[in-house]
Amino acid sequence: MNWIQNCWQVGAIAREIDAGLLGRTIMDERIVFFRDFDGQPVALEDRCPHRIYPLSRGRYADGVIECGYHGLRFDSRGRCVGIPGQTSIPERARVRAYPVVERYGWIWVWIGDAKRADPALVPAGYHWVDEPGWRAVHGYTHFAANYQLLVDNLLDLSHETFVHPDLIGNRTIAENPVSAEIVDDRYVHAYRSMPNIIPAPFFRDVNAIPGRIDRYHATFYTPPSYIVVESRAVPAGSTDPKLATERRNLFPLSPESATSTHMFWCVVRNNRLDDRELDGFIFEKGALTQEQDRAVLEEQQRLIGDDPGVRFPVAIRVDAGPTLGRRLHERVLRAGRGETLRSEVTA
Amino acid sequence: MNWIQNCWQVGAIAREIDAGLLGRTIMDERIVFFRDFDGQPVALEDRCPHRIYPLSRGRYADGVIECGYHGLRFDSRGRCVGIPGQTSIPERARVRAYPVVERYGWIWVWIGDAKRADPALVPAGYHWVDEPGWRAVHGYTHFAANYQLLVDNLLDLSHETFVHPDLIGNRTIAENPVSAEIVDDRYVHAYRSMPNIIPAPFFRDVNAIPGRIDRYHATFYTPPSYIVVESRAVPAGSTDPKLATERRNLFPLSPESATSTHMFWCVVRNNRLDDRELDGFIFEKGALTQEQDRAVLEEQQRLIGDDPGVRFPVAIRVDAGPTLGRRLHERVLRAGRGETLRSEVTA
Amino acid sequence: MNWIQNCWQVGAIAREIDAGLLGRTIMDERIVFFRDFDGQPVALEDRCPHRIYPLSRGRYADGVIECGYHGLRFDSRGRCVGIPGQTSIPERARVRAYPVVERYGWIWVWIGDAKRADPALVPAGYHWVDEPGWRAVHGYTHFAANYQLLVDNLLDLSHETFVHPDLIGNRTIAENPVSAEIVDDRYVHAYRSMPNIIPAPFFRDVNAIPGRIDRYHATFYTPPSYIVVESRAVPAGSTDPKLATERRNLFPLSPESATSTHMFWCVVRNNRLDDRELDGFIFEKGALTQEQDRAVLEEQQRLIGDDPGVRFPVAIRVDAGPTLGRRLHERVLRAGRGETLRSEVTA
Repeated sequence: MNWIQNCWQVGAIAREIDAGLLGRTIMDERIVFFRDFDGQPVALEDRCPHRIYPLSRGRYADGVIECGYHGLRFDSRGRCVGIPGQTSIPERARVRAYPVVERYGWIWVWIGDAKRADPALVPAGYHWVDEPGWRAVHGYTHFAANYQLLVDNLLDLSHETFVHPDLIGNRTIAENPVSAEIVDDRYVHAYRSMPNIIPAPFFRDVNAIPGRIDRYHATFYTPPSYIVVESRAVPAGSTDPKLATERRNLFPLSPESATSTHMFWCVVRNNRLDDRELDGFIFEKGALTQEQDRAVLEEQQRLIGDDPGVRFPVAIRVDAGPTLGRRLHERVLRAGRGETLRSEVTA
Repeated sequence: MNWIQNCWQVGAIAREIDAGLLGRTIMDERIVFFRDFDGQPVALEDRCPHRIYPLSRGRYADGVIECGYHGLRFDSRGRCVGIPGQTSIPERARVRAYPVVERYGWIWVWIGDAKRADPALVPAGYHWVDEPGWRAVHGYTHFAANYQLLVDNLLDLSHETFVHPDLIGNRTIAENPVSAEIVDDRYVHAYRSMPNIIPAPFFRDVNAIPGRIDRYHATFYTPPSYIVVESRAVPAGSTDPKLATERRNLFPLSPESATSTHMFWCVVRNNRLDDRELDGFIFEKGALTQEQDRAVLEEQQRLIGDDPGVRFPVAIRVDAGPTLGRRLHERVLRAGRGETLRSEVTA
Repeated sequence: MNWIQNCWQVGAIAREIDAGLLGRTIMDERIVFFRDFDGQPVALEDRCPHRIYPLSRGRYADGVIECGYHGLRFDSRGRCVGIPGQTSIPERARVRAYPVVERYGWIWVWIGDAKRADPALVPAGYHWVDEPGWRAVHGYTHFAANYQLLVDNLLDLSHETFVHPDLIGNRTIAENPVSAEIVDDRYVHAYRSMPNIIPAPFFRDVNAIPGRIDRYHATFYTPPSYIVVESRAVPAGSTDPKLATERRNLFPLSPESATSTHMFWCVVRNNRLDDRELDGFIFEKGALTQEQDRAVLEEQQRLIGDDPGVRFPVAIRVDAGPTLGRRLHERVLRAGRGETLRSEVTA
């Protein structure tokens, strides 16, 4: 797979590595995540160079990993710091350490050229997680599908009507026209206004707005796989911004392999911030929504097979977002690994 | 796989599509079966041309399929008749429609050249399903084995002794000689008389003939995969045709892939026509019998592997039927797709 | 796979074939094991030459196998002795018979050149099973890993510390130095003394020596895959041989395929010979120990993939045994199939 590697990818939800070792493959690289003695996140090559065994299956204590087969110990920089039965450490006894940053409740890892791993390049568009007056709920879903199928999916929300009719979709979405554009040659903006509609069940329950609403949603996509979905509702006809319920749905998608993807997702809202029951409700419905997409996209991947150069025979109007997304992705990919991605995942 | 495609293949038991959509692969082609507004059977390519997703996973109403991903709608001729959010329909928004016929309780589909799809070519040998004075029970079993292994199996019923000893076989079968011939260069006829034998358990229960019987069975095979098995029993020594119990076991076998087959099966009998309990008994024992064959043939397929040109090292006398069957099949295959198959599956 | 075939491999624990047919693949060859009329072990090609079906799925009576598909019968020399419906037997109706020997509670089979299959070449080092004053417990574990990974594992027992901490390992093992040498160009001897240590749980329970012990273990390896592990414990500081508890752990490893292995294992002890509860305890803990190794080696195999030429990047001191083992194995393999293996698996 021809990856765009010089960028930050989410490897884990931060709390996943609070308790110990986590093995996860990002862009075909097996990585073990953990915290060092000071609690700082670490990402190492997940493969002991002694007898080729995953370090993530070993033991962890005080910021050091001990291999579960012969007990070689590695520190947070990937240097071997102990070999049972000997005091000298061979030069080659080391594993690769990846640049890593903890931000917005996620552990970000840089697979490409480490010299270019600037923490300032972590997509700023995910700032919503830390924004005062907003509340975030994190989740994770594994997809056996290429990440571009997930990007297509999130850039065309008309599918909510057909894939999520009982949750976030109803007939009013697909019939409203979508607009899409590439902005500054850096990201895709696709958006749709749905005036005076009956809200789908999830929105009715979360927004707590009685009756019809004016709904608006927009997807922002920055290659290779950063998505923010903006969602807004007001009582139909209202122009009072204080009555607006807003959410940002954050999707830093991390390719696992050519045919599988880690979907990290986070729903950030500006209403009922202290409502812990609503947190649980959003998590549950979010997970259900991703499961519905997963069923569709995994079947789509099976039909497509392993062909990375698939062409879709027929384009329609709702494809405006995905079409621009693929075009911008191709442009970034062709520009080569030498191009550092900007961080504008805007919403 | 080098298929014989210019012929009718069973795609479904008719009642399977009464309630909605059915996705099934025939000769490597994914097809969705359903009924149009008038109840007529339809077979379409099971792949939405918009984003490559199986239509069989969509919704169905009033003879129209709606894709489960973005809601494109297709009629029974495969034409797109609706796209959410737009009124114009692109030229390429269509899926292939296969010729289809409903007959003998089955939905028949024609994968090859549609111009040659003459309903008169549906194998007339399966007329027993509709015959007055006879009663049919339909079933279906999936085999992870090439269809020619199933044809071999049904053309040599000596295997009943070893594979089905508790149901339809006992030691008396394999010891009686089999005769076989190619008739009119069109079908294989293999048959065996078993005079004065103790009936196997299934025959004892179904025939309701006390004591020893004269048993007769014959297999008729027309390439590529049409089988009729004739089965007859009379009290030993009797020449009174009124005492004869007869069955026709119909097997229109439909290749799914090079290593898997849809076995449609139907048992038609001329006795105890109104006995609903006997219907259930025959269905249950039929299903058990196919399961026993399935275990054997799937293991045989595993040992053979994917080699389509397998040669069996040793031939014995009971192979007379299978040997002629393979010969006739080869002849039809070499004659090319240009040859329309005749419909004589005789019994 | 480039096998060393001119040697005896264990195909079964002897009692596995007392009751009937056993199908097992050795070095990619499918074999059916059973006993002939006189109780002598037999190993035949597990593939009926009539229609390519495993004989091990058939029936067995009086030293003869009957194929489960069409009833062809084969005797212990692989000759067809019966075909239903005919009296003549075709010349080619035979299966390969492999030389076979029953010894030390195992059925040994010779896959290579039958003319060189000398029973004297059965590894004499396994004589402990029959030794007066010793008691043997047999077991079997399947590994989805190449046999050389198992040899590596048993030639470096420092892994006990990390893989088996609750059973046979503790921190004192890996810290004691190991010695290793190739003896007479025929076998590898790797050994370690552990004076005045606290015994690991299994040893504490089995040895019944209170307090600290002097422990000693040694692995003897003869290519391709014969292992004997010697284990000895005395009360710390004692020189009285009568106080020593000894065991021989026998591992005739039989390759199944390039990535899987039959681990036959046998624990032979010189104490508490009549203690049937101890037999059960040893079996249970032995099986648990192999399961722990299985989890590690199968994961190691997955990481390595199918590459037979894998090189381990870093060598450390405890690798002395495995390194010599791989070197001797390579030498035997290069010497070609023409070299008959000697039988010195010494302990």
